[in-house]
Amino acid sequence: MSGTEDDDRLARVALTWLAEPGNRAVWDLVQARGAVATLEQLIGGDVPEDSLRTAVLARARTDDPRHHAEVALRRGRRVGARVVIPSDEEWPSRVESLATLELEIPGQINHDVRPPLCLWVRGGRSVGEAFERSVAIVGARAATRYGENVTMDLGYGLAEQDWTIVSGGAFGIDTFAHRSALAAGGTTVAVLACGVDRPYPLGNTPIFQQIADSGLLMSEWPPGSEPLRHRFLIRNRVIAAATAGTVMVEAAARSGAAQTMSRVVALNRPAMVVPGPVTSAMSVGCHELLRRCPQARVVTTVAHVLDEVGQIGEYLAEPARAVSHPRDDLDEESALVLEAVPRRGTAGPGQLASRAGLSLRTVLRRLSLLEIRGLVVRRGDGVALTEFARAATERTGMPPRAPLTAAPPSSG
Amino acid sequence: MSGTEDDDRLARVALTWLAEPGNRAVWDLVQARGAVATLEQLIGGDVPEDSLRTAVLARARTDDPRHHAEVALRRGRRVGARVVIPSDEEWPSRVESLATLELEIPGQINHDVRPPLCLWVRGGRSVGEAFERSVAIVGARAATRYGENVTMDLGYGLAEQDWTIVSGGAFGIDTFAHRSALAAGGTTVAVLACGVDRPYPLGNTPIFQQIADSGLLMSEWPPGSEPLRHRFLIRNRVIAAATAGTVMVEAAARSGAAQTMSRVVALNRPAMVVPGPVTSAMSVGCHELLRRCPQARVVTTVAHVLDEVGQIGEYLAEPARAVSHPRDDLDEESALVLEAVPRRGTAGPGQLASRAGLSLRTVLRRLSLLEIRGLVVRRGDGVALTEFARAATERTGMPPRAPLTAAPPSSG
Repeated sequence: MSGTEDDDRLARVALTWLAEPGNRAVWDLVQARGAVATLEQLIGGDVPEDSLRTAVLARARTDDPRHHAEVALRRGRRVGARVVIPSDEEWPSRVESLATLELEIPGQINHDVRPPLCLWVRGGRSVGEAFERSVAIVGARAATRYGENVTMDLGYGLAEQDWTIVSGGAFGIDTFAHRSALAAGGTTVAVLACGVDRPYPLGNTPIFQQIADSGLLMSEWPPGSEPLRHRFLIRNRVIAAATAGTVMVEAAARSGAAQTMSRVVALNRPAMVVPGPVTSAMSVGCHELLRRCPQARVVTTVAHVLDEVGQIGEYLAEPARAVSHPRDDLDEESALVLEAVPRRGTAGPGQLASRAGLSLRTVLRRLSLLEIRGLVVRRGDGVALTEFARAATERTGMPPRAPLTAAPPSSG
Repeated sequence: MSGTEDDDRLARVALTWLAEPGNRAVWDLVQARGAVATLEQLIGGDVPEDSLRTAVLARARTDDPRHHAEVALRRGRRVGARVVIPSDEEWPSRVESLATLELEIPGQINHDVRPPLCLWVRGGRSVGEAFERSVAIVGARAATRYGENVTMDLGYGLAEQDWTIVSGGAFGIDTFAHRSALAAGGTTVAVLACGVDRPYPLGNTPIFQQIADSGLLMSEWPPGSEPLRHRFLIRNRVIAAATAGTVMVEAAARSGAAQTMSRVVALNRPAMVVPGPVTSAMSVGCHELLRRCPQARVVTTVAHVLDEVGQIGEYLAEPARAVSHPRDDLDEESALVLEAVPRRGTAGPGQLASRAGLSLRTVLRRLSLLEIRGLVVRRGDGVALTEFARAATERTGMPPRAPLTAAPPSSG
């Protein structure tokens, strides 16, 4: 580690102590001048933003921020924590998308949403690698058994498929998200709103220990930092930005999880919502988000989540996936007719009858059923697969159907 | 009632016996030539559509359709059923929207979706008045206790506020929809797929009797008609078209209720879905629809349903109302830009700037926001409204919809 890099690291730690992470003015300065020069400027009293000035000057007056940073680094070393900065290879690059985040609520100034200056990390894994295939699962602390079960189910299935489960370490949904990954022998990351030396809540200490052993404990705040209320909201943007997508399992009305989801939406990442009984207060926040936010997607299975976050084609080879294909419960005749419809383009009922080996009468009857189910459409020039049927086929990776090359041109 | 009107009524009954209701070719002829002339033409063997010819000729050969119609009318009189036709004041005018129904999948032929030629009705209320403020509640026959309870809750609350509850008379959700309105002392309509003289299923006979006493039993098919499987699907379009909106409470995968909902969406009516536990097979169809269909809206309370179906301003006094138009919480500049995007087609940023009275720079910035929110799309030739933005605008009635009473007389 070069001296310059050490200086940069120390300055970033000090800056995070001077002003809460995510601060736009500080981040802009660091981008323009570097962390070391920015720290000198702020200590010198040249604070560019009114809202920042009082807090920064008060802190800079009481103590040397560099000294504070050195204390924090020593404290971190005692619990095996390292400081990761953007120039490190393991920096989770997705968080940089916060650099241009426009919040979805117009007119709102983008306070506290810029990327982290540094991350404190406990755990042996590379941060960047852990986040590469990662899904956040967030939700209510006061989760119900329903929410816990769904979380376990989704998290376990995703972890089994080598996706990292990211959450905030809180009671309720967060805890079950972490547990699910641990149970599956997968990787889980807890992104904290306090120092990684004393994760909050204390009741989760055994789980935090397991996470530190096999996954990652991570925070923007230096060791010793308290989990102040506003820090959870600042922290949420990192969960939203560092992952490939976020699932909200249960949430009361106007919850913290919903705030995370609004960041996810603003970042144009998959914002996935598990619905629940409308009679459950713990699903109100989920249904609220679905009503308010057209980008939010209903997910009910691991396959749905993978649809949202997976790369195209990445899962084509996986036969074990518990995916229901729309033709799963078709009768045999209907399945034959569906099979006969070309993947692209159209075919006339006569062609379908000959391909499926069925009578024209049977084909016509079965086509009505397939149409009702949204699997085929009748067009002027014949019958075609719907987008839905095609997408489902792609998702489930069923072998592509043979093109209709041998058949005569479609009849009307 | 004039002789001509009687002839028209008889001819419409006979035509419904000759060809299943909703048939496009028959309806087109009736629009062009009237029911009496159409009946004569078909009896004479001049059947314009291939698909229709075999069935119509077979029936016309075996029996005189007029005789059949007279028998049906006598049979109807015995159970106090009347035949309502478009020239009657009580005709439910919303069903005429089927006249121009384009199914949501472009290119699909509109089989069997045209308006009814006539309606058989038991019950003292005016059909038109009963449907004016009406919501359909549909769903699974094999409903769970959860679905039954939610149906009772929603139906009761809507009926209390003087909304007619429309459903199909089946076991499960349908039954509870009717029951909820009866319990609230409100009006309920059962739209049947068989004759009103012997409503199906027989197990619901006591409820059908109550419905006939205080609400309406209604069918397109003459008394004595069997509830054949395909008739339920034909019937569904009437439930979708005659009501101000439809709520799907529980549905298994690929259910009949989902087919109703696809008609609702195609008619640009509020398509409302009650979510449920993802662990319940009876909510799979609801979640499927929400995933497949961006126009479908989550509803969990009576207030949500009223948001969707209520006339503008009617419920402004209700504090529970949530915002339902996507531009409600746009900042002023973004709203101006959105306003400037043409309803159909595209406009360039320069055009938008001049229409909105904003700088090009502002327009470009606001367009990004509108795009993130899914309200506009950029195309090669400019900016266009998304389907979502268009649908939402229509749903919320901007510009306001004409009240039902002011609707043009049905072109019969």
